[in-house]
Amino acid sequence: MKIKAAVYGASGYTGQELIRILSRHPEVQLTAVTSRRYAGVPVAKVFPSLAGFTSLVYADATPQEIAALCDVVFLALPHGVSMEIAPAFVEAGRKVIDLSADYRLRDLAEYEKWYVPHKSAALIGQAVYGLPELYRRQIDKAGLIANPGCYPTCIILGLAPLLKNGLIEVDSIIADCASGVSGAGRDPVVGSLFCEVDGGYKAYKVGNHRHTPEIEQELGVLAGESFAVSFTPHLLPVKRGILSTIYATLKRDISTAGLQDIYASFYEVEKFVRVLPAGDIPNISSVCGSNYCDVGMVCDPRTGRVIVVSAIDNLVKGAAGQAVQNMNIIFGLPEESGLAAVPVYP
Amino acid sequence: MKIKAAVYGASGYTGQELIRILSRHPEVQLTAVTSRRYAGVPVAKVFPSLAGFTSLVYADATPQEIAALCDVVFLALPHGVSMEIAPAFVEAGRKVIDLSADYRLRDLAEYEKWYVPHKSAALIGQAVYGLPELYRRQIDKAGLIANPGCYPTCIILGLAPLLKNGLIEVDSIIADCASGVSGAGRDPVVGSLFCEVDGGYKAYKVGNHRHTPEIEQELGVLAGESFAVSFTPHLLPVKRGILSTIYATLKRDISTAGLQDIYASFYEVEKFVRVLPAGDIPNISSVCGSNYCDVGMVCDPRTGRVIVVSAIDNLVKGAAGQAVQNMNIIFGLPEESGLAAVPVYP
Amino acid sequence: MKIKAAVYGASGYTGQELIRILSRHPEVQLTAVTSRRYAGVPVAKVFPSLAGFTSLVYADATPQEIAALCDVVFLALPHGVSMEIAPAFVEAGRKVIDLSADYRLRDLAEYEKWYVPHKSAALIGQAVYGLPELYRRQIDKAGLIANPGCYPTCIILGLAPLLKNGLIEVDSIIADCASGVSGAGRDPVVGSLFCEVDGGYKAYKVGNHRHTPEIEQELGVLAGESFAVSFTPHLLPVKRGILSTIYATLKRDISTAGLQDIYASFYEVEKFVRVLPAGDIPNISSVCGSNYCDVGMVCDPRTGRVIVVSAIDNLVKGAAGQAVQNMNIIFGLPEESGLAAVPVYP
Amino acid sequence: MKIKAAVYGASGYTGQELIRILSRHPEVQLTAVTSRRYAGVPVAKVFPSLAGFTSLVYADATPQEIAALCDVVFLALPHGVSMEIAPAFVEAGRKVIDLSADYRLRDLAEYEKWYVPHKSAALIGQAVYGLPELYRRQIDKAGLIANPGCYPTCIILGLAPLLKNGLIEVDSIIADCASGVSGAGRDPVVGSLFCEVDGGYKAYKVGNHRHTPEIEQELGVLAGESFAVSFTPHLLPVKRGILSTIYATLKRDISTAGLQDIYASFYEVEKFVRVLPAGDIPNISSVCGSNYCDVGMVCDPRTGRVIVVSAIDNLVKGAAGQAVQNMNIIFGLPEESGLAAVPVYP
Repeated sequence: MKIKAAVYGASGYTGQELIRILSRHPEVQLTAVTSRRYAGVPVAKVFPSLAGFTSLVYADATPQEIAALCDVVFLALPHGVSMEIAPAFVEAGRKVIDLSADYRLRDLAEYEKWYVPHKSAALIGQAVYGLPELYRRQIDKAGLIANPGCYPTCIILGLAPLLKNGLIEVDSIIADCASGVSGAGRDPVVGSLFCEVDGGYKAYKVGNHRHTPEIEQELGVLAGESFAVSFTPHLLPVKRGILSTIYATLKRDISTAGLQDIYASFYEVEKFVRVLPAGDIPNISSVCGSNYCDVGMVCDPRTGRVIVVSAIDNLVKGAAGQAVQNMNIIFGLPEESGLAAVPVYP
Repeated sequence: MKIKAAVYGASGYTGQELIRILSRHPEVQLTAVTSRRYAGVPVAKVFPSLAGFTSLVYADATPQEIAALCDVVFLALPHGVSMEIAPAFVEAGRKVIDLSADYRLRDLAEYEKWYVPHKSAALIGQAVYGLPELYRRQIDKAGLIANPGCYPTCIILGLAPLLKNGLIEVDSIIADCASGVSGAGRDPVVGSLFCEVDGGYKAYKVGNHRHTPEIEQELGVLAGESFAVSFTPHLLPVKRGILSTIYATLKRDISTAGLQDIYASFYEVEKFVRVLPAGDIPNISSVCGSNYCDVGMVCDPRTGRVIVVSAIDNLVKGAAGQAVQNMNIIFGLPEESGLAAVPVYP
Repeated sequence: MKIKAAVYGASGYTGQELIRILSRHPEVQLTAVTSRRYAGVPVAKVFPSLAGFTSLVYADATPQEIAALCDVVFLALPHGVSMEIAPAFVEAGRKVIDLSADYRLRDLAEYEKWYVPHKSAALIGQAVYGLPELYRRQIDKAGLIANPGCYPTCIILGLAPLLKNGLIEVDSIIADCASGVSGAGRDPVVGSLFCEVDGGYKAYKVGNHRHTPEIEQELGVLAGESFAVSFTPHLLPVKRGILSTIYATLKRDISTAGLQDIYASFYEVEKFVRVLPAGDIPNISSVCGSNYCDVGMVCDPRTGRVIVVSAIDNLVKGAAGQAVQNMNIIFGLPEESGLAAVPVYP
Repeated sequence: MKIKAAVYGASGYTGQELIRILSRHPEVQLTAVTSRRYAGVPVAKVFPSLAGFTSLVYADATPQEIAALCDVVFLALPHGVSMEIAPAFVEAGRKVIDLSADYRLRDLAEYEKWYVPHKSAALIGQAVYGLPELYRRQIDKAGLIANPGCYPTCIILGLAPLLKNGLIEVDSIIADCASGVSGAGRDPVVGSLFCEVDGGYKAYKVGNHRHTPEIEQELGVLAGESFAVSFTPHLLPVKRGILSTIYATLKRDISTAGLQDIYASFYEVEKFVRVLPAGDIPNISSVCGSNYCDVGMVCDPRTGRVIVVSAIDNLVKGAAGQAVQNMNIIFGLPEESGLAAVPVYP
C-alpha cells in the first residue's frame, strides 16, 4: 500500500521538483497537485520534462478537498500563505511538510519582525524543524514539519561539527553564500530574467536577508548560546546550487586533516552528507540534481581561522529532496528512498 | 546474479556518464574502469559527483585483463582506438558495446574516406547498429554493437516516420543541428574553454562533419534508396543536449495534426521517444539527464515543407544511455532498466 | 552644434542600447528619454552600467513635448504603439527612426495579416527601409526610417550577394536562425527567465514568425521576384547575438573561394560587413557589442547547396546600432560615427 | 606623433584585451605583438573579433627587436617569464608596464616564498605599483610599472577609504571574492573547460592564493601597519568580472549613508571608481567591458561589521585597462584616453 502524497502549490520550481522526485518514489503515489494559475492544465504541459511521468492535472482545490486524497501533503507555498493552508491539513490529521518559512522560527516575535503577522501561531509549538541530521528523532513523530530554508540547510550542516565540539568563537562567524536563480522561484520578475542574471554576479539583501534569524536560531541551539552571524547571499548565474563559504576564528590550533576527521566522524552515519577528503573543496556542480550536501574545510594558521565550504542543490537538499527525506522518516521508510539519484555532471 | 560490466576508456564525459548510469543499474555490477591518464586514481577523485556511488579505481589494463572481469564491456574510446581494442573482447566472447564510430559504417571504403584506415575490418560485418527503435531484433543477438553517434541518433529518430511512410522528397533533407559542449569531449583544447564557448554560437565543419555518412547510411536504409543530406552542426553554450531542426519537402499535403498522429503511432511502443502534442516543439532542457528523445513537427503549407524538431541529451540517448539500452536488450532486461531517471529541470 | 536626439520608450534593452551608444556619440547630445514605468527615475538607477554617462531622468512625456527637445527621435516601442507616436514627430518635422515593425512592410494588407490593424497607414509610403547596405541613398533623404528587424538584417545581408547575382534557386531558401534572449525584450515573462533559458535550446514560432514577410519582401526586391522562404528562429542561452545558417540550391557550380570573392567585392565599401576569409565561419561572440555583420559561406558540391552563415549583435546591428547608422547617414556624418567600438571578446 | 606601443606575449586574454583597447586608443600606434605559438599568424585569425582593427601579425621576436619598435611595452607574460624579459626593455630605455606579478612585491623574500626564485631582483626597487588611485604621482615618473593583480585591485579599492580613515579593525578583514574564468587565462586546461565551469561554483586555493601577499602589502601601506587577511577566491561561471565581498569589524558606529559619504569624498576626483548611492550594491555585469570599479557598502549594526562590495572587469581594470591607464599617466595623456567605453549591458 503506497503512501498517498499531494503537493499544494505545485507550479513553481520547488513544486516541480517535488513532482519530479515523488513521481519516481517507489513507495509513493502522487494523488493531487494544485495551482490556481494552471488549474485544469496537465502538469506535463507546464513542465514538458515530466511527460510520461505523471498524468496529473493541476487542480484549484481547497485544503479539505486535497486532505481527502492524501496521507501527507507538501506545501510549496510562499510564506504567509502556508500559515493559512496548513491548519486545515493538521486538523484533518494529515502529515504536513511545509516548505515555507512559516513554522521555522520558534520565537513568534522574531518571525513577525522579519516576515508578517502570523495567522496560526498556535501551530508553531507543534512544528519540528526538518533537518534530519539534527532532528531525526523528533521528525519521526511529528505531524507538522517546518522544512528548512536552502541557505540555512547549507550553513548549518557546514557548521554543526564545529559548534557541537565548541571549536570556534561564535561571534566570529561569517557566512558568505551564493545561490542559483531557481532559489528566487518561477515568478516572472525583471531580476530573474536571463539577460539580468547571465554574466552577472551580485550580493543582495546585504545584512537583512530573512534567512538570518533561522540560521541564528539553529546555530544557537548547536552552540548552546545566542549570537549574531554575518550572512551575505549572492546571486549566481546558474540554475541550481548553493555554496556557502563560512569563516570562523578557531579557539585552538587544529590541522585541516584533524578537522576533517572530526567532520567525517560527525557525519559518519549520514546518507546525504559527504565530507570530502582533507583539502578538497566542494563545487555545486558535484551535487546538482541530488540530495547531497558536500562539505570541505581548510584551517588557516596565518589568520587563525577555519574556512568551511558546503554545497547543496537548493531545490533538492535545500527544499524538495529534504522534504521527501522528512517524509521517509515520518513513514518509517529508508531515508534515501526515492532520493538515490546520482548527481548529474557535467 | 548481476551482469558484470566494465568501461574501457572511462575518463571522458561519456565514460563518466556510463559509470553514473551503471552504478545505479539494479542488474549490473560495475567491475572495472580503465584510463591511462588516471591509472591508480579513484574515480571519485576525478569526478567528485560520483563519491559514494563507486569505490573503483582507474586501471591501466589490457583488454584481456578486463575481459576476465566482465560479461559486457563498453568502449568509450576515440575512433581509431576502439578498432584496436574491440577484437580482443570479441575473441574472449564478451559482449562489446562500442561507442566510437569504428563499426558504424557498413561500407569500409566510406569509413576510410571519412576516418582512418581500418584495422579490424573483418568485424564490421558482425556489428549491429545499436539504435533500438530500428534494430531491436538484431541487437538482441548481437555480440558487437556499434552504438550510434549523437547527431545521427537525433536526426534518424526525427526522420524515421517520414521516410518509412514515403512522405518526403529525400533529396530535400536539411538537418540543422546544435550540440552542447560535452559532445566535444573532455580533452583540454582551446575551442572547448568556457571563455571561447560562453556567449557564443557558431556552425562548424560545415559540409564535412564525419557523422554525415552515418546519417546518410541509416536514412538511406529507411528510405530504401541512397541520397545526400545537408547536415550542419553548431556549438551551443550548454553542457548537454542536441537539437535537430530538420527540413524536407512534403510529397503531399498533410496537416501538422495528421503528421503528429503518424509519429505517435510509429513510436507507440517506444519507451524513450516522446512525440509531443501537435504544435509543441522540443527543448533540450526537457530531456537533460534522461534517455528521452522528444520529437515535434510542423507542416508549413506556405513552403510545402515539414519542419521536424528532435531533442536528446547527447551523453545519454546520444551515447551512454543508448549503450545501456542496448545492453538491456542483449541481456533480456526491461529496456528501461537503469534508465528511468526523470529529466532534471530546470 | 550637436544633433539633439531623444529616445521614446527607453526602458527596454533596445532603449538602453540606444542610450549606451548615443551617450558616447561625438556629434550627438541626448536630450530626452521616456518611459511610463520609470517616469521620474534616473536612467542610471535602472541601468547602473550607465552611471556617469548620462544624468537623464526618464520622462513620461507626449510626442509633442519631446519633439520640442530634439532633431531626431528614436522610437523603441512595441509594434502597434509606434504607429500611434510616429505621426506627431513627422508632423513636427523631426527625423524619425522607428525600431518597431510598423513601417517596414510596404504592403498594408500583409502588415495587417501578420500584425494588427494599422493606424497611420498613410505614412507607410514615406518610410524608407533602413538597411544602409541596400538603401543608403534613400535613407539619406528620408524623414521616417523603418529600422529593420534583427533576423531580417542578418538574413538579408547574408543573402544579398547571392540574390543580386542570381546564383541561387529562390524557392530553395531555408534560413535557420538563433537569437540571444535580449531579442525578447525586458518584459518579465516566464519564458525569458534565467531558469527557463539557461541550458536550453528550442525552436519557436516555427512557420509563423512575424519577421517572415519582412524577410520575403526584401529578398524579393533583391531577386526581382516574389517567393516564400522557410524561416525558423531558435532561442539561444546567450544575452546578445543572432546567427543565421542559410541554405540554398546553387544554379551553377562555384567554389567556396570563388563565392567568397563575390561577397568580398559586393561588400567592399561597407564599414560594417566583414566577409571572412574563405572557409572561416562566423561566431556571434566575435561581433558582440559591435555594429558588425560577419559573413562566411561554404559551397557543398555533394548536395549542390551553398550554406551561408551570418552573425550580428541583435541589439546593435540588429537594432540600436543600425538606427544610429541611419541617423549618421541622414545627418551627413561618417557612417561609423559613434559606432567604432571593437567587439568585446571574450 | 603617436606613442608607439608593443605587447609582448599577446596571445592570451590579457594580450587580446590590450590589443582591443590600444587599437582604438587615439594617441597610440600599436607597432608589434609577439607570440611564440602564433608566430606568423595574423592577430585577426586568432581573434576574429579584431578583424578590421589591426593588420598586425604575431612575431616571435626578442625584447631587443621589439624595443626598437616601441616607446612603451606591455608585458602580458606569466610570472617568472616577465622577469627574464623586462630588463632588456628597461636597459633600452623603454617604458615597461608589466602585467605579471614579478615586480609587485617589494619584499624579495616574500616573492620567492609565494612564487619562484627571482632573476632580476635589482629592478624590484625601481618598480612602481601601478594602482593610479593610490600611486598616481609615482607612476608619473616610473620606468617600470608593476601592474596590480586583478583580485588585489578590486580589494584594495574596496578597502582604501576604510583603512586610510582608520575605521576598521585590521585583523578582522575577510575578502571573499569571485572571478570570471578569463582570469585563468587561455591555456587549455581541464579546469577551464566549459563543461567543468558552467553550472558550477567553487572556492579554490583556499588560504594559499598567491595574490594574498600583494593584498596584504598594499592594505598594510594604507593602514600603516602589517596584518594578515583571509582571502578566498571562487570561480564564477562567467567570462569577465570580479566581485569582492569584504567584511571588517568597525571601530565605531557609523551609518551606511555616512560611510557612503566618506567613500564618495575619497574617490571624488577618480574617473574610474564609481561609488554607488547608499544602499546600492554592485554587479559585475554593470562594469563588463569597462575600466570601472563600482563600490557599494552596508554597515550592519547587528554584527558591528561593515560589508563592502566592489566589482571590476578583471581583464580591464584588473589588467589591460589599468595598464593603459598607467601608460596614459606616464605619457601625460588624459587618464581616460582610450578607456572611455561604456560597459556593455546586458
